[in-house]
Amino acid sequence: MSQKPQIKACREVARSRLFRVEELELKFSNGVERTYERLGSFGSGHQAVMVVPLLDHNRFLMIREYAAGTEDYQLTLPKGLVEPGESLAEGGNRELKEEVGVGAKQWHYLSEFTLSPNYMRNQIHVMAAKDLYEERLEGDEPEPMEVVEWSFDRLLELNEREDFSEARVLAALFLVKEKLQSGWLKETND
Amino acid sequence: MSQKPQIKACREVARSRLFRVEELELKFSNGVERTYERLGSFGSGHQAVMVVPLLDHNRFLMIREYAAGTEDYQLTLPKGLVEPGESLAEGGNRELKEEVGVGAKQWHYLSEFTLSPNYMRNQIHVMAAKDLYEERLEGDEPEPMEVVEWSFDRLLELNEREDFSEARVLAALFLVKEKLQSGWLKETND
Repeated sequence: MSQKPQIKACREVARSRLFRVEELELKFSNGVERTYERLGSFGSGHQAVMVVPLLDHNRFLMIREYAAGTEDYQLTLPKGLVEPGESLAEGGNRELKEEVGVGAKQWHYLSEFTLSPNYMRNQIHVMAAKDLYEERLEGDEPEPMEVVEWSFDRLLELNEREDFSEARVLAALFLVKEKLQSGWLKETND
Repeated sequence: MSQKPQIKACREVARSRLFRVEELELKFSNGVERTYERLGSFGSGHQAVMVVPLLDHNRFLMIREYAAGTEDYQLTLPKGLVEPGESLAEGGNRELKEEVGVGAKQWHYLSEFTLSPNYMRNQIHVMAAKDLYEERLEGDEPEPMEVVEWSFDRLLELNEREDFSEARVLAALFLVKEKLQSGWLKETND
């Protein structure tokens, strides 16, 4: 395994309300020098969490939300930033209540994902939530979100849909499916 | 399904060599108005392609590459920008030769992924490549990449590794695994 390149300099080269671009001067262990750009975290550096809300061992809930990047509605999972003082499960539960209108009694940690680690620091924690109950919290969403029930035996069909494209959502769903097939959460009641 | 919000204004608010930040003024169909920020494409707007290089119906090749965003080496799949005049398969084959040291005779389209469609336009095409042959092309990589063989029956183990985190790579691998289990590519020889 290679020795990490040395970071000879790191400076901010652009900034907006949400985004910060940094320029890195790197020297690789073979002597090659390169200048890279990367994004600082968006969303103020807080931790982010994405939730797979499970109805049972096959069915889960998704939301349909407007995505400003691609300018269209997208089927996705509830997610958001964890606020100061919240645990990941507490932040996830608040987002669930705001976006789906349910809370969850059981929380199980799954993974931490990066989006494009060559260009971004951004990471998101992924949790599965079980034992759902109805409870709605008022969030900062501009409009109510449609809630859609889907199932793990239809993930290839989900991938084919025009209104679905988000890699981290697909990764989270396949991960839960494979873990459930391997006996995960078997000890809990269904 | 909701009517799309109206984009009342879109202006550039920050720019660097690779990144461009846009501010959008949106009016949702219920009358609520919001100002969002999003990233324009990084990498000059060219199409991007990520490749799953298949050795057989269980084994595939990965690379270990330095990721400037997270400042460490990451297990990932070969990927890059498609150059003008190249098809997706031609761009994928060039990246394979540069990063892995193999080409592929058979190319199969899988999907188009977004990373964070709320905040970015970026999309990447995913292709599976079969019938590999040895051929190395000189790319713009700062150092040679370690090539690692992995298998579809060890994806949960991959997800647990410290040097693996990239959601789009995990999504692509699970997608190929599930499609292979559903009889995909069965018509070709192994």
